[in-house]
Amino acid sequence: MAMKLYFAPGACSFVPHSLLETAGADYEPVMVKLHKGEQNEPAFRAVNPRGQVPVLVDGDQTITQIVAIVTYLDAKFPEQQYLPKDPLARAKVLETLAWMNNTVHPTFTHVFMPFKFAGTPEAQEELKSFNAKVYAGLLGEIEAMAKKAADAGKPWLGGDKLGPLDVYSLTLLRWGGFAKIDPASFPALWAHVQKVAQQPGVAKAVERERLQLNLFKA
Amino acid sequence: MAMKLYFAPGACSFVPHSLLETAGADYEPVMVKLHKGEQNEPAFRAVNPRGQVPVLVDGDQTITQIVAIVTYLDAKFPEQQYLPKDPLARAKVLETLAWMNNTVHPTFTHVFMPFKFAGTPEAQEELKSFNAKVYAGLLGEIEAMAKKAADAGKPWLGGDKLGPLDVYSLTLLRWGGFAKIDPASFPALWAHVQKVAQQPGVAKAVERERLQLNLFKA
Ligand SMILES: N[C@@H](CCC(=O)N[C@@H](CS)C(=O)NCC(=O)O)C(=O)O
Ligand SMILES: N[C@@H](CCC(=O)N[C@@H](CS)C(=O)NCC(=O)O)C(=O)O
Repeated sequence: MAMKLYFAPGACSFVPHSLLETAGADYEPVMVKLHKGEQNEPAFRAVNPRGQVPVLVDGDQTITQIVAIVTYLDAKFPEQQYLPKDPLARAKVLETLAWMNNTVHPTFTHVFMPFKFAGTPEAQEELKSFNAKVYAGLLGEIEAMAKKAADAGKPWLGGDKLGPLDVYSLTLLRWGGFAKIDPASFPALWAHVQKVAQQPGVAKAVERERLQLNLFKA
Repeated sequence: MAMKLYFAPGACSFVPHSLLETAGADYEPVMVKLHKGEQNEPAFRAVNPRGQVPVLVDGDQTITQIVAIVTYLDAKFPEQQYLPKDPLARAKVLETLAWMNNTVHPTFTHVFMPFKFAGTPEAQEELKSFNAKVYAGLLGEIEAMAKKAADAGKPWLGGDKLGPLDVYSLTLLRWGGFAKIDPASFPALWAHVQKVAQQPGVAKAVERERLQLNLFKA
Protein backbone atom coordinates (compact mmCIF):
# COMPACT_ATOMS: atom_id res chain seq x y z
CA MET A 1 0.00 0.00 0.00
CA ALA A 2 1.33 3.41 -0.95
CA MET A 3 1.94 6.09 1.68
CA LYS A 4 -0.26 9.14 2.12
CA LEU A 5 0.77 12.63 3.13
CA TYR A 6 -1.85 15.01 4.48
CA PHE A 7 -0.63 18.50 3.69
CA ALA A 8 -1.87 22.07 3.40
CA PRO A 9 -0.57 24.53 0.80
CA GLY A 10 2.08 26.81 2.30
CA ALA A 11 2.02 25.09 5.69
CA CYS A 12 4.88 23.36 7.48
CA SER A 13 3.84 20.12 5.77
CA PHE A 14 5.94 21.48 2.91
CA VAL A 15 8.93 19.90 4.70
CA PRO A 16 7.87 16.24 4.29
CA HIS A 17 6.11 17.07 1.02
CA SER A 18 9.41 18.20 -0.53
CA LEU A 19 11.34 15.28 0.92
CA LEU A 20 8.85 12.72 -0.41
CA GLU A 21 9.04 14.31 -3.88
CA THR A 22 12.83 14.48 -3.72
CA ALA A 23 12.96 10.76 -2.93
CA GLY A 24 10.56 9.99 -5.79
CA ALA A 25 8.37 8.22 -3.24
CA ASP A 26 5.23 6.34 -4.19
CA TYR A 27 2.66 8.22 -2.11
CA GLU A 28 -0.66 9.99 -2.36
CA PRO A 29 -0.74 13.69 -1.43
CA VAL A 30 -4.01 14.55 0.33
CA MET A 31 -4.82 18.24 0.58
CA VAL A 32 -6.34 19.66 3.79
CA LYS A 33 -7.79 23.16 3.40
CA LEU A 34 -6.83 24.87 6.65
CA HIS A 35 -8.48 28.17 5.65
CA LYS A 36 -11.78 26.25 5.36
CA GLY A 37 -11.22 24.61 8.75
CA GLU A 38 -11.01 21.10 7.32
CA GLN A 39 -8.48 20.21 10.04
CA ASN A 40 -11.32 20.46 12.56
CA GLU A 41 -13.80 18.27 10.69
CA PRO A 42 -14.44 14.76 12.02
CA ALA A 43 -12.93 13.12 8.91
CA PHE A 44 -9.53 14.71 9.53
CA ARG A 45 -9.71 14.51 13.34
CA ALA A 46 -10.03 10.74 12.86
CA VAL A 47 -6.64 10.84 11.13
CA ASN A 48 -5.02 13.28 13.59
CA PRO A 49 -6.98 14.10 16.75
CA ARG A 50 -4.74 17.16 17.24
CA GLY A 51 -6.07 18.64 13.98
CA GLN A 52 -2.76 19.49 12.36
CA VAL A 53 -0.81 18.71 9.23
CA PRO A 54 1.57 17.11 8.33
CA VAL A 55 0.41 13.53 8.81
CA LEU A 56 2.21 10.66 7.13
CA VAL A 57 0.33 7.38 6.79
CA ASP A 58 2.31 4.27 5.95
CA GLY A 59 0.22 1.10 5.83
CA ASP A 60 -1.88 1.08 8.98
CA GLN A 61 0.49 3.43 10.81
CA THR A 62 0.15 7.18 11.25
CA ILE A 63 3.03 9.49 12.09
CA THR A 64 2.66 13.16 13.02
CA GLN A 65 5.28 15.78 13.95
CA ILE A 66 7.81 17.01 11.43
CA VAL A 67 10.80 15.81 13.46
CA ALA A 68 9.41 12.26 13.65
CA ILE A 69 8.36 12.17 9.99
CA VAL A 70 11.79 13.39 8.88
CA THR A 71 13.63 10.68 10.83
CA TYR A 72 11.22 8.11 9.41
CA LEU A 73 11.79 9.28 5.82
CA ASP A 74 15.53 9.28 6.48
CA ALA A 75 15.33 5.59 7.44
CA LYS A 76 12.98 4.76 4.56
CA PHE A 77 15.08 6.47 1.86
CA PRO A 78 18.68 6.01 3.07
CA GLU A 79 20.11 6.91 -0.36
CA GLN A 80 18.80 10.47 0.11
CA GLN A 81 20.94 10.99 3.24
CA TYR A 82 18.38 13.35 4.72
CA LEU A 83 20.21 13.11 8.05
CA PRO A 84 23.92 12.39 8.56
CA LYS A 85 24.78 8.89 9.79
CA ASP A 86 27.53 9.93 12.20
CA PRO A 87 25.87 10.40 15.65
CA LEU A 88 27.46 13.78 16.32
CA ALA A 89 26.78 15.23 12.87
CA ARG A 90 23.26 13.84 13.11
CA ALA A 91 22.72 15.45 16.52
CA LYS A 92 23.89 18.82 15.15
CA VAL A 93 21.37 18.68 12.28
CA LEU A 94 18.62 17.56 14.67
CA GLU A 95 19.57 20.44 16.97
CA THR A 96 18.80 22.96 14.24
CA LEU A 97 15.75 21.03 13.03
CA ALA A 98 14.33 20.88 16.59
CA TRP A 99 15.02 24.59 17.08
CA MET A 100 13.29 25.52 13.82
CA ASN A 101 10.38 23.35 14.91
CA ASN A 102 10.04 24.35 18.59
CA THR A 103 11.14 28.00 18.42
CA VAL A 104 11.08 29.60 14.95
CA HIS A 105 7.91 27.90 13.70
CA PRO A 106 5.85 28.53 16.90
CA THR A 107 7.00 32.16 16.98
CA PHE A 108 5.36 32.59 13.59
CA THR A 109 2.23 30.82 14.86
CA HIS A 110 1.89 33.65 17.41
CA VAL A 111 1.75 36.13 14.50
CA PHE A 112 -0.54 34.04 12.28
CA MET A 113 -2.85 32.38 14.84
CA PRO A 114 -2.55 34.45 18.03
CA PHE A 115 -5.91 33.08 19.21
CA LYS A 116 -4.11 29.82 19.98
CA PHE A 117 -2.27 31.58 22.83
CA ALA A 118 -4.56 34.33 24.15
CA GLY A 119 -8.27 35.09 24.31
CA THR A 120 -8.54 38.89 24.37
CA PRO A 121 -8.20 40.98 21.17
CA GLU A 122 -5.68 43.29 22.89
CA ALA A 123 -3.42 40.41 23.92
CA GLN A 124 -3.70 38.93 20.43
CA GLU A 125 -2.60 42.23 18.86
CA GLU A 126 0.33 42.42 21.27
CA LEU A 127 1.32 38.82 20.43
CA LYS A 128 1.30 39.64 16.74
CA SER A 129 3.51 42.69 16.91
CA PHE A 130 5.87 41.39 19.61
CA ASN A 131 6.47 38.07 17.88
CA ALA A 132 6.86 39.56 14.40
CA LYS A 133 9.95 41.28 15.82
CA VAL A 134 11.19 38.14 17.54
CA TYR A 135 10.62 36.27 14.26
CA ALA A 136 12.82 38.67 12.32
CA GLY A 137 15.61 38.03 14.82
CA LEU A 138 15.25 34.27 14.46
CA LEU A 139 15.36 34.53 10.65
CA GLY A 140 18.56 36.48 11.23
CA GLU A 141 20.00 33.38 12.93
CA ILE A 142 19.10 31.27 9.88
CA GLU A 143 20.64 33.94 7.64
CA ALA A 144 23.89 33.50 9.59
CA MET A 145 23.73 29.74 8.99
CA ALA A 146 23.13 30.23 5.26
CA LYS A 147 25.99 32.72 5.05
CA LYS A 148 28.33 30.41 6.92
CA ALA A 149 27.47 27.52 4.57
CA ALA A 150 27.90 29.72 1.48
CA ASP A 151 31.23 31.10 2.73
CA ALA A 152 32.46 27.55 3.31
CA GLY A 153 31.35 26.50 -0.18
CA LYS A 154 28.73 24.12 1.23
CA PRO A 155 25.62 23.89 -0.95
CA TRP A 156 23.23 22.69 1.81
CA LEU A 157 22.56 23.67 5.42
CA GLY A 158 22.72 20.23 7.01
CA GLY A 159 24.93 17.87 5.09
CA ASP A 160 26.11 16.82 1.66
CA LYS A 161 22.65 16.67 0.14
CA LEU A 162 19.46 18.68 0.27
CA GLY A 163 17.70 17.95 3.55
CA PRO A 164 15.11 19.05 6.08
CA LEU A 165 16.93 22.23 7.12
CA ASP A 166 16.93 23.50 3.52
CA VAL A 167 13.23 23.00 2.91
CA TYR A 168 12.19 24.16 6.40
CA SER A 169 14.14 27.38 5.92
CA LEU A 170 12.24 27.97 2.66
CA THR A 171 8.93 27.69 4.54
CA LEU A 172 10.09 29.88 7.42
CA LEU A 173 11.48 32.66 5.21
CA ARG A 174 8.36 32.57 3.03
CA TRP A 175 6.14 32.97 6.13
CA GLY A 176 8.16 36.07 6.98
CA GLY A 177 6.32 37.84 4.15
CA PHE A 178 3.08 37.58 6.19
CA ALA A 179 4.91 39.31 9.05
CA LYS A 180 6.00 42.13 6.69
CA ILE A 181 9.57 40.87 6.59
CA ASP A 182 11.30 41.38 3.24
CA PRO A 183 13.16 38.17 2.31
CA ALA A 184 15.77 40.29 0.51
CA SER A 185 16.83 41.64 3.92
CA PHE A 186 18.38 38.19 4.47
CA PRO A 187 20.47 37.93 1.29
CA ALA A 188 22.30 34.63 1.91
CA LEU A 189 19.13 32.91 3.08
CA TRP A 190 17.04 34.35 0.24
CA ALA A 191 19.58 33.17 -2.35
CA HIS A 192 19.64 29.74 -0.68
CA VAL A 193 15.84 29.46 -0.61
CA GLN A 194 15.55 30.39 -4.29
CA LYS A 195 18.08 27.69 -5.14
CA VAL A 196 16.29 25.14 -2.95
CA ALA A 197 12.98 25.90 -4.71
CA GLN A 198 14.55 24.97 -8.04
CA GLN A 199 15.62 21.47 -7.05
CA PRO A 200 13.43 19.00 -8.98
CA GLY A 201 11.61 17.39 -6.00
CA VAL A 202 11.14 20.68 -4.19
CA ALA A 203 9.90 22.31 -7.40
CA LYS A 204 7.19 19.65 -7.66
CA ALA A 205 5.98 20.39 -4.13
CA VAL A 206 6.10 24.15 -4.87
CA GLU A 207 4.00 23.56 -7.96
CA ARG A 208 1.40 21.33 -6.30
CA GLU A 209 1.05 23.86 -3.44
CA ARG A 210 1.07 26.75 -5.97
CA LEU A 211 3.51 28.62 -3.76
CA GLN A 212 4.72 32.11 -4.46
CA LEU A 213 8.07 32.39 -2.67
CA ASN A 214 8.05 36.11 -1.99
CA LEU A 215 4.92 37.21 -0.12
CA PHE A 216 6.35 40.50 1.04
CA LYS A 217 4.50 43.67 0.08
CA ALA A 218 6.32 46.91 0.82
CA MET B 1 37.72 13.87 28.23
CA ALA B 2 34.52 13.41 30.22
CA MET B 3 31.26 14.97 29.06
CA LYS B 4 29.65 17.97 30.72
CA LEU B 5 25.98 18.70 31.18
CA TYR B 6 24.88 22.25 31.89
CA PHE B 7 21.62 21.98 33.82
CA ALA B 8 19.35 24.02 36.05
CA PRO B 9 17.43 22.53 38.99
CA GLY B 10 13.84 21.77 38.01
CA ALA B 11 14.32 22.83 34.39
CA CYS B 12 13.85 20.72 31.27
CA SER B 13 17.53 19.76 31.52
CA PHE B 14 16.23 17.14 33.93
CA VAL B 15 15.59 14.98 30.84
CA PRO B 16 19.25 14.50 29.80
CA HIS B 17 20.35 14.73 33.45
CA SER B 18 18.27 11.64 34.31
CA LEU B 19 19.35 9.77 31.19
CA LEU B 20 23.04 10.40 31.86
CA GLU B 21 22.65 9.15 35.45
CA THR B 22 20.64 6.14 34.29
CA ALA B 23 23.43 5.21 31.88
CA GLY B 24 26.03 5.64 34.63
CA ALA B 25 27.82 8.06 32.30
CA ASP B 26 31.16 9.63 33.13
CA TYR B 27 30.23 13.32 33.02
CA GLU B 28 30.43 16.51 34.99
CA PRO B 29 27.14 18.18 35.94
CA VAL B 30 27.48 21.98 35.79
CA MET B 31 24.76 23.95 37.52
CA VAL B 32 23.38 27.14 35.91
CA LYS B 33 21.26 29.27 38.27
CA LEU B 34 18.46 30.53 36.06
CA HIS B 35 16.81 32.50 38.89
CA LYS B 36 20.07 34.48 39.20
CA GLY B 37 20.18 35.04 35.44
CA GLU B 38 23.42 33.09 34.98
CA GLN B 39 22.14 31.96 31.55
CA ASN B 40 22.58 35.55 30.36
CA GLU B 41 26.12 36.04 31.64
CA PRO B 42 28.95 36.06 29.09
CA ALA B 43 30.48 32.86 30.51
CA PHE B 44 27.36 30.84 29.74
CA ARG B 45 26.51 32.67 26.50
CA ALA B 46 29.92 31.51 25.25
CA VAL B 47 28.71 27.93 25.77
CA ASN B 48 25.19 28.49 24.37
CA PRO B 49 24.55 31.84 22.66
CA ARG B 50 20.80 31.20 23.00
CA GLY B 51 21.17 31.29 26.79
CA GLN B 52 19.34 28.07 27.62
CA VAL B 53 19.95 24.76 29.31
CA PRO B 54 20.38 21.87 28.63
CA VAL B 55 23.76 21.91 26.91
CA LEU B 56 25.76 18.71 26.49
CA VAL B 57 29.47 19.06 25.82
CA ASP B 58 31.36 16.05 24.52
CA GLY B 59 35.02 16.70 23.77
CA ASP B 60 35.12 19.87 21.72
CA GLN B 61 31.52 19.52 20.57
CA THR B 62 28.46 21.20 22.03
CA ILE B 63 24.91 19.94 21.55
CA THR B 64 21.79 21.84 22.57
CA GLN B 65 18.09 20.95 22.23
CA ILE B 66 16.61 18.07 24.18
CA VAL B 67 15.57 16.16 21.06
CA ALA B 68 19.11 16.26 19.67
CA ILE B 69 20.75 15.43 23.00
CA VAL B 70 18.40 12.46 23.51
CA THR B 71 19.20 10.96 20.09
CA TYR B 72 22.90 11.49 20.80
CA LEU B 73 22.69 9.74 24.19
CA ASP B 74 20.71 6.94 22.54
CA ALA B 75 23.58 6.37 20.11
CA LYS B 76 26.23 6.72 22.84
CA PHE B 77 24.57 4.29 25.27
CA PRO B 78 22.90 1.72 23.01
CA GLU B 79 22.45 -0.73 25.89
CA GLN B 80 19.99 1.69 27.51
CA GLN B 81 17.64 1.52 24.50
CA TYR B 82 16.48 5.08 25.07
CA LEU B 83 14.83 5.01 21.64
CA PRO B 84 13.52 1.93 19.80
CA LYS B 85 15.64 0.67 16.92
CA ASP B 86 12.76 -0.17 14.57
CA PRO B 87 12.17 2.94 12.39
CA LEU B 88 8.42 3.02 12.91
CA ALA B 89 8.53 2.46 16.67
CA ARG B 90 11.30 5.04 16.84
CA ALA B 91 9.24 7.57 14.88
CA LYS B 92 6.29 7.05 17.23
CA VAL B 93 8.45 7.77 20.30
CA LEU B 94 10.00 10.79 18.59
CA GLU B 95 6.50 11.98 17.70
CA THR B 96 5.57 12.17 21.38
CA LEU B 97 8.99 13.53 22.39
CA ALA B 98 8.77 16.29 19.75
CA TRP B 99 5.21 17.13 20.82
CA MET B 100 6.21 17.37 24.50
CA ASN B 101 9.09 19.58 23.41
CA ASN B 102 7.36 21.87 20.89
CA THR B 103 3.86 22.05 22.40
CA VAL B 104 3.57 21.01 26.07
CA HIS B 105 6.86 22.53 27.26
CA PRO B 106 6.41 25.92 25.45
CA THR B 107 2.82 26.15 26.72
CA PHE B 108 4.24 26.09 30.24
CA THR B 109 6.83 28.69 29.27
CA HIS B 110 3.92 31.06 28.53
CA VAL B 111 2.77 30.63 32.15
CA PHE B 112 6.24 30.84 33.70
CA MET B 113 7.98 33.39 31.48
CA PRO B 114 5.19 35.28 29.65
CA PHE B 115 7.61 38.16 29.00
CA LYS B 116 9.23 35.98 26.33
CA PHE B 117 6.07 36.34 24.22
CA ALA B 118 4.50 39.72 25.04
CA GLY B 119 5.60 43.11 26.34
CA THR B 120 2.55 44.56 28.11
CA PRO B 121 1.57 43.49 31.65
CA GLU B 122 -2.05 42.92 30.53
CA ALA B 123 -1.03 40.61 27.69
CA GLN B 124 1.34 38.76 30.03
CA GLU B 125 -1.47 38.17 32.55
CA GLU B 126 -3.72 36.91 29.77
CA LEU B 127 -0.98 34.56 28.52
CA LYS B 128 -0.57 33.12 32.02
CA SER B 129 -4.22 32.35 32.63
CA PHE B 130 -5.04 31.24 29.08
CA ASN B 131 -2.08 28.88 28.84
CA ALA B 132 -2.50 27.42 32.33
CA LYS B 133 -5.83 26.07 31.03
CA VAL B 134 -4.30 24.83 27.79
CA TYR B 135 -1.54 23.19 29.84
CA ALA B 136 -4.02 21.24 31.95
CA GLY B 137 -5.56 19.88 28.74
CA LEU B 138 -2.16 18.81 27.43
CA LEU B 139 -1.32 17.05 30.71
CA GLY B 140 -4.65 15.30 30.18
CA GLU B 141 -3.27 13.90 26.93
CA ILE B 142 -0.20 12.57 28.77
CA GLU B 143 -2.51 11.12 31.45
CA ALA B 144 -4.27 9.18 28.67
CA MET B 145 -0.91 7.84 27.48
CA ALA B 146 0.05 6.77 31.02
CA LYS B 147 -3.33 5.11 31.53
CA LYS B 148 -3.08 3.27 28.21
CA ALA B 149 0.41 1.98 29.11
CA ALA B 150 -0.72 0.91 32.59
CA ASP B 151 -3.83 -0.82 31.22
CA ALA B 152 -1.63 -2.70 28.73
CA GLY B 153 0.77 -3.72 31.52
CA LYS B 154 3.59 -1.68 29.99
CA PRO B 155 5.91 -0.17 32.61
CA TRP B 156 7.24 2.69 30.43
CA LEU B 157 5.73 5.22 28.04
CA GLY B 158 8.03 4.71 25.08
CA GLY B 159 9.48 1.24 24.95
CA ASP B 160 10.76 -1.64 27.03
CA LYS B 161 13.00 0.48 29.23
CA LEU B 162 12.83 3.83 30.96
CA GLY B 163 13.33 6.55 28.38
CA PRO B 164 12.94 10.22 27.52
CA LEU B 165 9.12 10.21 27.58
CA ASP B 166 9.10 8.97 31.17
CA VAL B 167 11.47 11.59 32.53
CA TYR B 168 10.00 14.43 30.43
CA SER B 169 6.53 13.61 31.76
CA LEU B 170 7.90 13.89 35.31
CA THR B 171 9.19 17.39 34.55
CA LEU B 172 5.98 18.46 32.81
CA LEU B 173 3.64 17.18 35.54
CA ARG B 174 5.84 18.73 38.23
CA TRP B 175 5.67 22.12 36.46
CA GLY B 176 1.89 21.82 36.58
CA GLY B 177 2.12 22.62 40.31
CA PHE B 178 3.32 26.15 39.42
CA ALA B 179 0.18 26.51 37.28
CA LYS B 180 -1.99 25.41 40.25
CA ILE B 181 -2.65 22.02 38.72
CA ASP B 182 -2.93 19.20 41.27
CA PRO B 183 -0.89 16.20 40.02
CA ALA B 184 -3.38 13.90 41.76
CA SER B 185 -5.99 15.02 39.21
CA PHE B 186 -4.03 12.89 36.71
CA PRO B 187 -3.90 9.61 38.67
CA ALA B 188 -2.23 7.34 36.10
CA LEU B 189 0.39 9.95 35.24
CA TRP B 190 1.02 10.84 38.89
CA ALA B 191 1.51 7.17 39.78
CA HIS B 192 3.84 6.80 36.80
CA VAL B 193 5.88 9.87 37.69
CA GLN B 194 6.32 8.72 41.30
CA LYS B 195 7.57 5.36 40.04
CA VAL B 196 9.92 7.05 37.55
CA ALA B 197 11.38 9.21 40.34
CA GLN B 198 12.36 6.09 42.25
CA GLN B 199 14.46 4.53 39.51
CA PRO B 200 18.11 4.68 40.63
CA GLY B 201 19.45 7.02 37.90
CA VAL B 202 16.44 9.31 38.03
CA ALA B 203 16.60 9.38 41.82
CA LYS B 204 20.19 10.65 41.61
CA ALA B 205 19.13 13.51 39.33
CA VAL B 206 16.18 14.29 41.64
CA GLU B 207 18.55 14.40 44.59
CA ARG B 208 21.18 16.60 42.90
CA GLU B 209 18.45 19.02 41.79
CA ARG B 210 16.75 18.76 45.22
CA LEU B 211 13.39 18.35 43.52
CA GLN B 212 10.12 18.15 45.37
CA LEU B 213 7.78 16.29 43.03
CA ASN B 214 4.51 17.81 44.19
CA LEU B 215 4.56 21.60 44.02
CA PHE B 216 0.79 22.01 44.14
CA LYS B 217 -0.66 24.11 46.96
CA ALA B 218 -4.45 23.95 47.31
N1 LIG C 1 4.48 20.47 15.94
C1 LIG C 1 3.81 20.17 14.69
C2 LIG C 1 3.27 21.46 14.15
C3 LIG C 1 2.30 21.28 13.04
C4 LIG C 1 1.64 22.59 12.66
O1 LIG C 1 1.95 23.65 13.21
N2 LIG C 1 0.73 22.50 11.68
C5 LIG C 1 -0.03 23.66 11.26
C6 LIG C 1 0.33 24.09 9.85
S1 LIG C 1 1.97 24.78 9.76
C7 LIG C 1 -1.51 23.30 11.25
O2 LIG C 1 -1.88 22.22 10.81
N3 LIG C 1 -2.32 24.22 11.73
C8 LIG C 1 -3.74 24.09 11.70
C9 LIG C 1 -4.33 24.42 13.01
O3 LIG C 1 -3.58 24.47 14.01
O4 LIG C 1 -5.56 24.64 13.07
C10 LIG C 1 4.79 19.51 13.72
O5 LIG C 1 6.00 19.62 13.91
O6 LIG C 1 4.36 18.80 12.79
N1 LIG D 1 14.02 24.02 22.94
C1 LIG D 1 14.95 23.92 24.05
C2 LIG D 1 14.29 24.54 25.25
C3 LIG D 1 15.22 24.76 26.38
C4 LIG D 1 14.56 25.56 27.49
O1 LIG D 1 13.37 25.89 27.43
N2 LIG D 1 15.36 25.82 28.54
C5 LIG D 1 14.89 26.62 29.64
C6 LIG D 1 14.76 25.81 30.93
S1 LIG D 1 13.43 24.64 30.85
C7 LIG D 1 15.88 27.71 29.91
O2 LIG D 1 17.09 27.51 29.89
N3 LIG D 1 15.38 28.93 30.16
C8 LIG D 1 16.17 30.04 30.55
C9 LIG D 1 15.80 31.23 29.75
O3 LIG D 1 15.12 31.08 28.72
O4 LIG D 1 16.19 32.34 30.17
C10 LIG D 1 15.31 22.45 24.27
O5 LIG D 1 14.58 21.56 23.82
O6 LIG D 1 16.37 22.17 24.85
